[in-house]
Amino acid sequence: MEPGPPGSSGPVEPGPCLSGQRGADHAASASLQSAAGTEPGRHSLAVAAVLPAGGCGERMGVPTPKQFCSILERPLISYTLQALERVCWIKDIVVAVTGENMEVMKSIIQKYQHKRISLVEAGVTRHRSIFSGLKALAEDQLNSKLSKPEVVIIHDAVRPFVEEDVLLKVVTAAKEHGAAGAIRPLVSTVISPSADGCLDHSLERARHRASEMPQAFLFDVIYEAYQQCTDYDLEFGTECLQLALKYCRTKAKLVEGSPDLWKVTYKRDLYAAESIIKEIISQEICVVMDSKEDNKHVGHLLEEVLKSELNVHFLDFKLVPPSQKMENLMQIKEFSKKVKERNILLYGLLISYPQDEQKLQESLRQGAIIIASLVKERNSGLIGQLLIA
Amino acid sequence: MEPGPPGSSGPVEPGPCLSGQRGADHAASASLQSAAGTEPGRHSLAVAAVLPAGGCGERMGVPTPKQFCSILERPLISYTLQALERVCWIKDIVVAVTGENMEVMKSIIQKYQHKRISLVEAGVTRHRSIFSGLKALAEDQLNSKLSKPEVVIIHDAVRPFVEEDVLLKVVTAAKEHGAAGAIRPLVSTVISPSADGCLDHSLERARHRASEMPQAFLFDVIYEAYQQCTDYDLEFGTECLQLALKYCRTKAKLVEGSPDLWKVTYKRDLYAAESIIKEIISQEICVVMDSKEDNKHVGHLLEEVLKSELNVHFLDFKLVPPSQKMENLMQIKEFSKKVKERNILLYGLLISYPQDEQKLQESLRQGAIIIASLVKERNSGLIGQLLIA
Repeated sequence: MEPGPPGSSGPVEPGPCLSGQRGADHAASASLQSAAGTEPGRHSLAVAAVLPAGGCGERMGVPTPKQFCSILERPLISYTLQALERVCWIKDIVVAVTGENMEVMKSIIQKYQHKRISLVEAGVTRHRSIFSGLKALAEDQLNSKLSKPEVVIIHDAVRPFVEEDVLLKVVTAAKEHGAAGAIRPLVSTVISPSADGCLDHSLERARHRASEMPQAFLFDVIYEAYQQCTDYDLEFGTECLQLALKYCRTKAKLVEGSPDLWKVTYKRDLYAAESIIKEIISQEICVVMDSKEDNKHVGHLLEEVLKSELNVHFLDFKLVPPSQKMENLMQIKEFSKKVKERNILLYGLLISYPQDEQKLQESLRQGAIIIASLVKERNSGLIGQLLIA
Repeated sequence: MEPGPPGSSGPVEPGPCLSGQRGADHAASASLQSAAGTEPGRHSLAVAAVLPAGGCGERMGVPTPKQFCSILERPLISYTLQALERVCWIKDIVVAVTGENMEVMKSIIQKYQHKRISLVEAGVTRHRSIFSGLKALAEDQLNSKLSKPEVVIIHDAVRPFVEEDVLLKVVTAAKEHGAAGAIRPLVSTVISPSADGCLDHSLERARHRASEMPQAFLFDVIYEAYQQCTDYDLEFGTECLQLALKYCRTKAKLVEGSPDLWKVTYKRDLYAAESIIKEIISQEICVVMDSKEDNKHVGHLLEEVLKSELNVHFLDFKLVPPSQKMENLMQIKEFSKKVKERNILLYGLLISYPQDEQKLQESLRQGAIIIASLVKERNSGLIGQLLIA
């Protein structure tokens, strides 16, 4: 089973690769490119992104900062970078990391072959980190390969499932309104406590929204706001939209985001992210069968049964001639260790092939259940095992 | 491997059973019983719980209401009921479900042997469902086996990880203040949009909290509030603490809750809940070994290696004499199907036992990885397989 995207030559990266089919709005993307003028002779809209990644993850309850926590053996921030890189009209991605994590970040960029990334040193607060990123993009920086964008996206390193369509919406709205941000309905009622720890009042849920990421700004607006704002803002503030409002009188346009934009904050969010990634990966599978020509139809039968077990977009079967088959268990084990390095999880499955039609169906059903559960769980502890249906 | 709690005679229930070790504050529980007077001759504090479970789960994006969604083949609401039932001082649990789900709910209660549950018909909104539950507890109801409690807990069916210590805290605070509720810090900044969909203002995050569940009230306070409140409150309100404040001038005490109190709202929350349940279950495992007396030390070696792979509280090894061993693969398969009905997932694992110390260690390490991944993933599609280390 191979988790790589269709049309690629296979997963050469050492971690899972999300192919970005979920909701990426290609028609809308084309319309931005057109609106922004990517046709020859017209000036295209210059868009960059700033990603503050200096947090220490104290809410997660684990020593590793959450953006560097591994999901399926790949750090969370790498998924977020991948999501931004997929969007071809984002020219530069500036990531703010603390000095102590600079080398870790460089090795992640190298290992996962991230492109268009510039690193800057994070500040001690989120706002200071964003300000560092914006400074690196401003024209007055010497020795910088970066150029000032017209619109800048601000996103979080710990929101890996950002899609092109929402990025496009906030960028388009920012160009028109000066600022824009994704919002979500509130899940819990928000209350205001009094000094003695009792309820002072509760807010009407329908009149409020949770401010999420991504946000986007005309670069000049947000850079001006950061240059004007106070140390108190930089230390205790969290909301960029508020800075644009306070210092540039720019009222941000609010854009409804998808539930998947949520911020990975607690350990349970890592679990949720892992399950979502597994679900995305398992939408495309390839089953390689070692089968003789004359029982090709068993392959088709299995395909039919498997389709009911797995909700896949793309399912490809390959018949391997018997000459290439694994001769014994140890060969499967050794081979599985080798391909694991290329992020391919290999399991053996022996499906018995009785003449009796009912028994054959039962055997295929068992096989389909095993394949489906292997694809869904991606259990790397079981690679190289020969399973029997 | 057996997921049942230590000291039990094994899992007789058809779904996973959480043993409730996480954070249950037994010392605090004893002090409540003492404060409330469970000693002979003193009156004990009568506590009941109301669980609105009439929601239709439109935010989940699945047709099943979220409280009935399955996690490891057991409905979410059953975990929540289990969490409340574990607390011996909660006398009655009133669950409000819609007419169309009444039979489903009854079958869940029967299947998972829930005790102390009364069912009432839910209203069309959350407040109306809670009101129905309170009415059932009020003394003036005829033909009711329920009696009016002094303190009533209100909780959500979709918050399965509620612990005894937080229940105790809100009940104790409610007895003193008339009302109390669990709160959490806000994860996102809360904003107020203007009519044209732009930012009007953002709220200072540090001055606000998310209101979560459980909440508790002196019964007379909350029942009075519901009797007084308007149709508008019952239709559009969500916050019980606000009703107690508005209609009974009772300022609720706010109690800091744990992150696990969060509300299962989106599909990703089901994933997170499943992972948390797997984590709880995998903290107690029993490995049954088929081993000869003279290589008992291999068992001890495996135990050592396994402890580094699994973060378990309780690990028990049993050596089975060779006479009881599984004779062949098919026997394991058949047996695993049988014990699956008792919620035991059985896998075979053959660990080769070479004389060479280094090879033995490698073999044990492989075995430990396989055991750990089986325990963590609880992959029911692979039961009965013979795996090889």
